[in-house]
This record gives sequence, structure tokens and C-alpha cells, in this order.
Amino acid sequence: MPNVIAIGSTGLDSIKTPFGSVENELGGTAINFALASSLFTRTGIVSVAGLDAKKQLDLLTQRNIDTRGLQIVMGKTLQWHGYYEYDMNEAHTTKTELNCFGSFNPVIPEEYRKSRFVFIGSIEPRLQVQVTKQLESPEFVVLDTKDFWIEKDRKSLLEAIKHTTVLLLNEWEARHLFDTPNLQKAAKEALKLGPSYVIIKKGEHGSLLFSDSVYFVAPSYPLETLIDPTGAGDSYAGALMGWLSTQGKVTELNLRKAMIYAAVVASFTVEDFGLRKLARTTPEDIEKRYQEIKKITCF
Amino acid sequence: MPNVIAIGSTGLDSIKTPFGSVENELGGTAINFALASSLFTRTGIVSVAGLDAKKQLDLLTQRNIDTRGLQIVMGKTLQWHGYYEYDMNEAHTTKTELNCFGSFNPVIPEEYRKSRFVFIGSIEPRLQVQVTKQLESPEFVVLDTKDFWIEKDRKSLLEAIKHTTVLLLNEWEARHLFDTPNLQKAAKEALKLGPSYVIIKKGEHGSLLFSDSVYFVAPSYPLETLIDPTGAGDSYAGALMGWLSTQGKVTELNLRKAMIYAAVVASFTVEDFGLRKLARTTPEDIEKRYQEIKKITCF
Repeated sequence: MPNVIAIGSTGLDSIKTPFGSVENELGGTAINFALASSLFTRTGIVSVAGLDAKKQLDLLTQRNIDTRGLQIVMGKTLQWHGYYEYDMNEAHTTKTELNCFGSFNPVIPEEYRKSRFVFIGSIEPRLQVQVTKQLESPEFVVLDTKDFWIEKDRKSLLEAIKHTTVLLLNEWEARHLFDTPNLQKAAKEALKLGPSYVIIKKGEHGSLLFSDSVYFVAPSYPLETLIDPTGAGDSYAGALMGWLSTQGKVTELNLRKAMIYAAVVASFTVEDFGLRKLARTTPEDIEKRYQEIKKITCF
Repeated sequence: MPNVIAIGSTGLDSIKTPFGSVENELGGTAINFALASSLFTRTGIVSVAGLDAKKQLDLLTQRNIDTRGLQIVMGKTLQWHGYYEYDMNEAHTTKTELNCFGSFNPVIPEEYRKSRFVFIGSIEPRLQVQVTKQLESPEFVVLDTKDFWIEKDRKSLLEAIKHTTVLLLNEWEARHLFDTPNLQKAAKEALKLGPSYVIIKKGEHGSLLFSDSVYFVAPSYPLETLIDPTGAGDSYAGALMGWLSTQGKVTELNLRKAMIYAAVVASFTVEDFGLRKLARTTPEDIEKRYQEIKKITCF
């Protein structure tokens, strides 16, 4: 049984940034998450891909990722085409072809149902609710979303949030979901819905952890060169949960540390296209940056 | 002799925010700086005001601020009219009347010339250069600017930067002055010009310290309610230098701590209009928030 499982997309991405471009690069929420999480622990995915991604998916086996929840179907994989401009802050989508992901119906395999750590990526909120119903008393459920779903099905999203341990949002989503420019206020509203924690990701500005009794500010790892931000948010979540799952107990201190590991792993993700850098990152690389972040926050 | 001196504007501000409005509220760079700095040490200002500000300026005497460098002239004080929208991130100027500040020619009084800590606010870069020439080997010179001057007289600004210990910029200014979206790169370029340190202020996202060998990330103090952000940047600088000047020696660790005190004092500034909250903030209030920031960054 995998320690951590992730439910979300598998995609083939075509990306342009000021530093170059790639085509049909393996990506998607479940994949980015799993690559990051598998740096720390055995990780399984629940996703769907077409036969056209078969070759690229070998990477998962190389990384010892559990693919029993990955359906390979006839036809094409989800395709995303996008580009980033000079400031790299925003992904501009030029084309999305849902293909087989359009009819994705996440079924958690029997072997995964007792996994302690569950990541529910930003799929349709209605499906997120269905996923929570398939789980057998998981210890730690993290829910992600995206702006599209906040607009399209806020009601189901709020329902899904009720069943989660951690609600993971980026700055924009937090402001938008709770209709306030103030992140403290947004987090307070989110906590009222039921989750024990809210984490707000702020890209280069780091991330924030909120609970009824806790507030923690995590910086990002400083980078001079950012090649491709695609997947950074998912690999942040993957590292957070992967590392945390190895620590026996979820404590406040462990959560703080997990956010630093998450920032470190996300910093590697963006240093090359797709999963390329992550695939060659070692535990020593990670530990080195973790210690550097310790130094840059100390006073 | 004051320990710290500030060169910059005195103004009467008319401000509207979603939380109310004020008219002819005492403000300006030198004033905001001095109120903050005087929480820690004897502070002098070099500025100019008209007779119409005379009554409001009593506050300076109450706070034991040295006004020997403040010229009171016939006529009107600088007036700024502006408003903030719901997200409070950006000041919208509706009117600026330079009045007596239009012919401000900063002369450092004899009694100030040996002050160890000098803040040169965002006045015309040509005047900033003139100020540096009037100083007698100060220990610590901090230079601020604003976007207007980056566009209007970049050349003199670069000259002024050469003579400073710390270049203080906000995010936008850093990106604009060095033509890069990446703050690490901007800071590196800035350091090449001569200053020992660069501090980049990022508002709610905290601030960053750079030198050839140091990188430090300071968070902001979390606030749910922000009433009026006017003057926050200047009071940040005032607290930074005021506290630092009481520590005997400028060390890397002291600079880090000073940035936390700066964040704390700026957090009080924005909790009421103009200088109102700052004027009633006690050393105990400051120490309490300082300790809170320690807790929210620890992992």
C-alpha cells in the first residue's frame, strides 16, 4: 500500500517560456505530485492517460511510483498548451484538449483505500466529493482547487472542503473563494468550513500556514533563474505530503518543516522544463537547500 | 546631536480609504520616518513646511524630535490627495501640490553633520547627491527613491546610490530600476553600484535583505485590518534605523533584527490614518509583536 496517494490529471504539456519550449512533456497534477512525493516515500496515483503517453509514463516505474490507480485508455491524453511571459507569474493557456481526462471518474483501487495521506488535486469539485466518500478514515487529506472550479461549482467545492484536513490554495484562489483581498481573513473563513489547516501558496513570496491556533510564514527558496513554473504547485503539495508521511505523527512543527521541504522541492521543479530537474534531484540536494532556508530566516 | 537624521518631505495629506477619510493629516517622508525612529532614539529631520502646518507640527516636539533642520516658510505645505481601493495595494494620487517643497534645498544643519545614521528619502536624485556631500563620514546611509525619479533622472540616482550603505527599494522600484522581474537579479545589480546592502520591501509579503554574502527573508506582521497604508514604507525605514542606531555596532544579525522591528512598526502605522496609531504605540506593543514574529517564522 502506498503511503501517499494523489488523485488528479496526467497530461502532455506543450510549453513555451522565454528560455525555450518543449512539446508533449509529461505533466499534470498527479504526475507532478507523485514525482515530488516519491522523493520521500512510496506514492500511488489515481489518474487517466491515453496510449499516446505510454512511453513517457515509464518515468513513473523508474521512480517506483505505484500506478495501480492509473487507467490507460484508448485515445489521447489530456493536452495543455501554454506559455509564460517574461515575468513568469502567470500561465497563459493557448489550448486545452481534455481528451480522455474529460470523462475521468476517479476510482480509488482497493489497495489504496487505507492510505494515510491523500491528495485530491484540482479536479471537478463533484468528483472531489466522490473521492472523499471512497476513503477509509484517512489521516491527512489535502484538497486543491483552481479558479475555474471556484466559479463553476463553488457549492460542491465547499462540500469537498468539509472533508479535508488541509485546504491548499494559491493567493488568487484564496481571495477569490472568500471575496476578500486579505489573506488572513480568507484563511479564517476557510477554517470555519471544517479543515484543520489552510495553506496559502504565494509563489516567490513563499507560503502561509493557518489554523485556529497557528500562523506560520515559510519563505520560498531564492532563485535567480526560473525556467518553467509549470507543476510547481503540485510538486509543492507532493513534497509536503511525502515528507510529512515519513514523520510518524503530524504535529504543528512537522507541518512547518514539511512546508520548507515543499518550498525546496518546488524550487527544483522550476529550474527546468516539466519534470526534468525533479527527476535528477537527490536527497542531498534537498537537504542542502533546506539548511540554506534555515539560515535565511534566522534572526 | 541626533543619533539619526532624515531628509525628506513634510506634507499635509488628504486620504480616502474604504475605512474612511482624513484631510490635512500631517505626513510626508521625514515626518513618518521620524515618528518611527523616535520610538527608539533621538531623531532629527531636514525638511520644509509652510505656516499652515504649524499646529500639526507640535507632534514633533511632543515626540522629542529634533527640528533644527526643519525650515518653516511663508506659504503652503506640500499637499497630497489620494485614495486607496479595496485591495489597498496601490495609492491613487488625485492631486499633488508641491508648494514650498517645490523649491526644497536640503541643508544639513551644522549640528547634524556628524550624525551616524542618515536617511535620504525619495527627493530629487540631484538633491540626494548634494546631501551626501554635506555629510561628515556617516556610518550608515540609507537611500530611498520612487518610481518617478527612476524614470526622470536615473543617472543622478545611480550616482547617489554609490554613496550609500543601504539602498532601500520596493518591489516595483527594484524591478524597474534594473529592468528584470527577478528580485535576486535586481539586488545583485544594485550591489554592483556600491552599497553594502540592498533591502527590498514587499508590503504584506515582507522584506528581503541582500549583500554579497547575506540573504535574509523577513515576514511582515500579519494584519486582518489595514486602515491606511500611507507612510508605511517611511516608518519601516525609521524603525529600521532608529533601532539599529541603539545597538552600538551594525552587524548582520542586528540588521536582520532591525528589519523585524521595521516590520512591526510599519504594522502599527497602517492600523490607523496618518500617524495616529504610531503616536500611541508603546515599546511594550512593539516588543510583543517582535516576539510574535519570532514564533511565526520558527521551524
